[in-house]
Amino acid sequence: MPMRRCCAALLGLCAVGSAHAADEGLVAVNGTPGVWWMAPAASVLALVMAYVFYAKMMKADPGNARMQEIAGYVREGAMAYLKQQYSRVAMVFAILVVVFSGLVVMGVQNPFVPVAFLTGGFFSGLCGYLGMRTATAASSRTAQGASESLNRGLQVAFRSGAVMGLVVVGFGLLDIAVWYWILDQLVYTTEHMKNGFGNLFGDVWLVHPNMNFADKLPEITTTMLTFGMGVSTQALFARVGGGIYTKAADVGADLVGKVESGIPEDDPRNPATIADNVGDNVGDVAGMGADLYESFCVSTISTAALGACLPAGIAYSGVNAVIAPMVVMAIGIVLSIIGIFAVRCNNDKATMMTLLRALRLGTWGSSGLVVVAMAVLAAVGFITWGICGAVLAGLIAGVIIGYSTEYYTSDEYGPTKGVAGQAKMGAATVIIDGLAVGMMSTLVPVLTVVLTILIAFGVTGGFHDMMSGLYGVAFSAVGMLATLGITLATDAYGPIADNAGGNAEMSGLPPHVRERTDSLDMLGNTTAATGKGFSIASAALTAMALLAAEVQEVDVWIRKLAAKGAVVFDTAAYTAATDKLSFFIHYLDLNILNPFLLGGLFIGAMMAFVFCAMSMKAVGRAAGAMVEEVRRQFKMMPGIMDGIEKPDYARCVAISTKGAQREMLLPAMLAISVPVATGLVLGVSGIMGLLAGALTAGFSLACMLNNAGGAWDNAKKHIEKGNLGGKRLPDGSKNPIHSAAVIGDTVGDPCKDTSGPSLNILIKLMSMVSIVFTPVTLKFAPVIQQWLGLIR
Amino acid sequence: MPMRRCCAALLGLCAVGSAHAADEGLVAVNGTPGVWWMAPAASVLALVMAYVFYAKMMKADPGNARMQEIAGYVREGAMAYLKQQYSRVAMVFAILVVVFSGLVVMGVQNPFVPVAFLTGGFFSGLCGYLGMRTATAASSRTAQGASESLNRGLQVAFRSGAVMGLVVVGFGLLDIAVWYWILDQLVYTTEHMKNGFGNLFGDVWLVHPNMNFADKLPEITTTMLTFGMGVSTQALFARVGGGIYTKAADVGADLVGKVESGIPEDDPRNPATIADNVGDNVGDVAGMGADLYESFCVSTISTAALGACLPAGIAYSGVNAVIAPMVVMAIGIVLSIIGIFAVRCNNDKATMMTLLRALRLGTWGSSGLVVVAMAVLAAVGFITWGICGAVLAGLIAGVIIGYSTEYYTSDEYGPTKGVAGQAKMGAATVIIDGLAVGMMSTLVPVLTVVLTILIAFGVTGGFHDMMSGLYGVAFSAVGMLATLGITLATDAYGPIADNAGGNAEMSGLPPHVRERTDSLDMLGNTTAATGKGFSIASAALTAMALLAAEVQEVDVWIRKLAAKGAVVFDTAAYTAATDKLSFFIHYLDLNILNPFLLGGLFIGAMMAFVFCAMSMKAVGRAAGAMVEEVRRQFKMMPGIMDGIEKPDYARCVAISTKGAQREMLLPAMLAISVPVATGLVLGVSGIMGLLAGALTAGFSLACMLNNAGGAWDNAKKHIEKGNLGGKRLPDGSKNPIHSAAVIGDTVGDPCKDTSGPSLNILIKLMSMVSIVFTPVTLKFAPVIQQWLGLIR
Repeated sequence: MPMRRCCAALLGLCAVGSAHAADEGLVAVNGTPGVWWMAPAASVLALVMAYVFYAKMMKADPGNARMQEIAGYVREGAMAYLKQQYSRVAMVFAILVVVFSGLVVMGVQNPFVPVAFLTGGFFSGLCGYLGMRTATAASSRTAQGASESLNRGLQVAFRSGAVMGLVVVGFGLLDIAVWYWILDQLVYTTEHMKNGFGNLFGDVWLVHPNMNFADKLPEITTTMLTFGMGVSTQALFARVGGGIYTKAADVGADLVGKVESGIPEDDPRNPATIADNVGDNVGDVAGMGADLYESFCVSTISTAALGACLPAGIAYSGVNAVIAPMVVMAIGIVLSIIGIFAVRCNNDKATMMTLLRALRLGTWGSSGLVVVAMAVLAAVGFITWGICGAVLAGLIAGVIIGYSTEYYTSDEYGPTKGVAGQAKMGAATVIIDGLAVGMMSTLVPVLTVVLTILIAFGVTGGFHDMMSGLYGVAFSAVGMLATLGITLATDAYGPIADNAGGNAEMSGLPPHVRERTDSLDMLGNTTAATGKGFSIASAALTAMALLAAEVQEVDVWIRKLAAKGAVVFDTAAYTAATDKLSFFIHYLDLNILNPFLLGGLFIGAMMAFVFCAMSMKAVGRAAGAMVEEVRRQFKMMPGIMDGIEKPDYARCVAISTKGAQREMLLPAMLAISVPVATGLVLGVSGIMGLLAGALTAGFSLACMLNNAGGAWDNAKKHIEKGNLGGKRLPDGSKNPIHSAAVIGDTVGDPCKDTSGPSLNILIKLMSMVSIVFTPVTLKFAPVIQQWLGLIR
Repeated sequence: MPMRRCCAALLGLCAVGSAHAADEGLVAVNGTPGVWWMAPAASVLALVMAYVFYAKMMKADPGNARMQEIAGYVREGAMAYLKQQYSRVAMVFAILVVVFSGLVVMGVQNPFVPVAFLTGGFFSGLCGYLGMRTATAASSRTAQGASESLNRGLQVAFRSGAVMGLVVVGFGLLDIAVWYWILDQLVYTTEHMKNGFGNLFGDVWLVHPNMNFADKLPEITTTMLTFGMGVSTQALFARVGGGIYTKAADVGADLVGKVESGIPEDDPRNPATIADNVGDNVGDVAGMGADLYESFCVSTISTAALGACLPAGIAYSGVNAVIAPMVVMAIGIVLSIIGIFAVRCNNDKATMMTLLRALRLGTWGSSGLVVVAMAVLAAVGFITWGICGAVLAGLIAGVIIGYSTEYYTSDEYGPTKGVAGQAKMGAATVIIDGLAVGMMSTLVPVLTVVLTILIAFGVTGGFHDMMSGLYGVAFSAVGMLATLGITLATDAYGPIADNAGGNAEMSGLPPHVRERTDSLDMLGNTTAATGKGFSIASAALTAMALLAAEVQEVDVWIRKLAAKGAVVFDTAAYTAATDKLSFFIHYLDLNILNPFLLGGLFIGAMMAFVFCAMSMKAVGRAAGAMVEEVRRQFKMMPGIMDGIEKPDYARCVAISTKGAQREMLLPAMLAISVPVATGLVLGVSGIMGLLAGALTAGFSLACMLNNAGGAWDNAKKHIEKGNLGGKRLPDGSKNPIHSAAVIGDTVGDPCKDTSGPSLNILIKLMSMVSIVFTPVTLKFAPVIQQWLGLIR
């Protein structure tokens, strides 16, 4: 029934959309066509559905008292972590508000930014909070569901994951839609653009008087783009902090619990076990969510910003080009909801294969429907067929990268089996082979991204008009992320199933329950591997769009600064230039032989490595503190091992929480300060090099770390399934082959769950910082370069 | 006495040089100034001195019969390897001759190339042969010397290393000088340029009739640049094949010999021990030599090529700019020889510190003298003060990178001590920490290279005239490599000392001899670490020069092809352009937002990872074959372990040899075919992206792999020195801390000795291939792109 309702809603929306497109969308230039209302409507729909799923899950049986107690510990830990993280984030936001306000006073920052970047950060944080609340409440209910049937367990876990997916896309698009409406309808009105609006002080206005009408859309979209800074800062803390937390707890729990004391995973006697379970939520739910929230918002806004700058003379430009990404995201949300409903098996005796097929029907079904919807939009002329092609390219790229990730990291294929086989020769060869597999796994994703860029650029007419092509590339990221609602649901589902397993173990449920949650968890591992490839690929395409958006930001700001006499700029030459993009490429000297750009390229590539080094070291230190604490508890409270004394879970949670937040400060500061410093010393061309270097080297490095980690993890699991002698030899002693594989798995942990994923953040955050600090770069870089003797 | 003779020779040469510079050098434009004769003179001097050192070494006592026998095995193995490698190289060269001849017939290749690229390859191969002959003859003599005194051992080993250093710079510069003389004096004569010369067939001439006189120097230098292809191909086989060989033998010998059978390193009962000793020569003498031979030649010629294209109007251009890099290299050779003589301690009771001081006096002394010589050249006006500054920047960069390498990889500093400390927690944390150290170690080298590029660009006036700045950057590579004669001597000395230790062990010399050779070896490790940083840094600066030279190659070829009507080119616009470099940057669309260039950047970064993956996998497979062979011999010939049966050393050598040559074929083909394919599909802009991506990502990745490997190696040695419990616990059992560190060391072996160093080759070879195939790209890329629908 809900599915039918949904379809009706979609058809209704489409009808509204196409009617409007036919009526005014194609002719209107300044007015926003009615089809735009799909965006707020779909985002509200997503939030409503998220609430429905949440309410349904909460009504499910939370299990017995012990199960609820365990779930309570995890929830408390997770909330304690969030509280700590948000108070830290609040401090950083407060500092940034002061910095941005200062820049506003100096006339080198958009006056909206100091306040408005808070909304992005706030909604991203809210998503994290809601997702975590849902996930922590769902674990015991999933365990309880699994004790009834596999399908029941899947339903609770997957629908709870869907809550995360839907709040992310819901709040993301709502934030964008509301801001667009405010700027379009209330701020940049015809009257305000003529007479000015919001004169804050001196010459600082919200809307400067006598504004050129042609600049309305570029002004709105570049203003909105800088709001992304809030989303990015929130993502940095969630992803990097979460990554450090989860691995510090995991490594700490494993090293003392499993290795030293020989108690099984998720044993309630291990003081770090609750922290470990909290970590799954902190890293894989909140961290992944904030990461993709950033990609979702930033790709939508940056595509709109590029659309706003499409030259008026060409086939497709104007307000349609600006609202198109929002409309496509809206359609994607509706189709994701339909897909979520499709994930079900009526049979309560479903097998793993049935479940996987059910999940795939949901994700692929929504993707297929997106393609159909795009074709409809192209047929009615709201978008071009080229854009339809770019979206298709993005969707297909996501699937290919997901499959190649699976090939390299699943133990059903050669690479991971090969890593497991190397364990016969010892740990060293496991590591060497895993590194080689990781490095090799960069091939397909990189070629896919390159092909996607070329296809998206070409089909949207980039070889005639470069700006259109870059718009097309940005749109391919929108295509990849359109069905984020359901793909994120399949990602967030994994840690919920994982936690359910922990809950079952700690509450002492019968073994068949644990077996079922393990099946769900393994299914989650497959989707998570795909999700990881998907998140780095979408980050790459988003960063590519931001690279082009940086030039637009320069376009808007350099003229403002020149008008005030703050920078030297040949406005006449600019006005005379027909192709503004080519003008800036030449003016900013964005060629590969420019030593500033090449220097930036070197530094960008290096930053990827240094950032990874820092996050790896951070895990090591935080895990060390955890190891000491667990050892201390075992020593001070000897009753723990006999099960007569309760370990102090909260202390371990507190140590991981504090460690994660402390350790992430230095890498965070580096990621924010390096683009600013590069801009000030090497100018805009240096920044463009920096971003391109971090993007290209970071993408390969992230693939390597993610996939090497995945291969090591699954090579170990492959042996634990009984291959190569299994976990223990017939005489009961440890199988040295398994021990060698465990070393590989431990090495892979920070690679795949901390350093690799945090590169997504680095790539996007450095772009965002560069964009927000563009006016600062434009104004001060020439002065600094002159002082350093770099220019005359 | 020889030192005094040398100084006299130098002063004489300088006098000739400066006299000529004053007389005609500064006024002549077409005639080559007499100071040029320093180049052939210095190269002959280097070869003579190499012979002198060789003859002296051969006169030293070769030790007792057993020592000579062992040395004989190693020599035979090394020669067998070289024979196999050279026959493989010969095949590849034969194929390339056919390919290039075909391209000549099609009018898309310089008619000199099919024959002339052979000379570069031949001389590079000859250096490898001579260096190996010397090194293998020197090992027993060094062992014998060490049995007399530490200083005596050092003298033999270091002077033998100097033979390698001097033949490399001698043949390198001689090849360049002879070709320059032939092209300048015999081929591109006034008459030939007017009437044409060497009409091979149809419209294919060696010198086309009615050639523009202004094009003489660009024609000569770009022709010479393509000869570098031979040097690069030879380097590829020597470095990658050598890297696979040495680690396959090392890992194979260690895994079965040390770990399984528990016999010490270099034990004559281990069948793989001779192959292991051969490997040191193959990898560290021949491989390193060919790598640096390539950097030396290519940086000299590419600087000359950029010098030839300096616009005539500016302060410094013309023939002086072309011959300046050759003259500076010549001065560097003479000063290196002086430095080599300075490495001595008269006291026969010298300590390690005295020895290190002696080595440093030699290397730093020559560097210091180069600076003085540059200042003299600048003062007399042969070069500008800017070029002097660029050379200084290159020299200082080499020192800084060397020191930072030492900081990260020596156990006297925090990072390596930290890695050793992690061994307390087990092998996994050793690996994680080592990876983090390697990643972190990219910071200083990258910043140093970026600063060097900016300084060299700036001081040579790049911010006024870009071409001059690029010439300055190229010259900084020349500065870094000017004292290659002595730096390579300190590199090649290491494996000789290492082999001497093996010889002492296998011949059963008294322990104090082994202690002395170990001291020499450790000194060699310090210089080798510095040398590794130096070789990747010089490769980076050389590749940077090649990036600019690629544009020059396009300049020369596109006009030729346009004249024949083979490509569409707006010759009028070219002629009208005052700044040809800017013209081509615009014409080829070399901006960072061009999707072809950005796609190339992605692929280039990825290639660095995939190439490393391949070489790592290759080591694994080759080592596996070795392990099986050693196990087979132990099983089939049980007398080996009791010392009554002689193991079949030759078979192990043959396995390593065959394995190395077979395994390197795929990566080699990839490195050659990817730039060609990228050029054909993505055009010149794609190639520029490819080269920049491989350069920037490859540089960081190489630093990471080299330094992580170095840190793991020395962390193990740190424990073996007795720290953290040493090798064995008081009860005689294995110390698990040491065992964990051994795993790290084994992982590091292929990283630091195969994959990391082979990235130097990848970076340079891909540039060289791109340059040689420029006309092919120019002619066919438009056709293919049209066919693929990438352009209209």
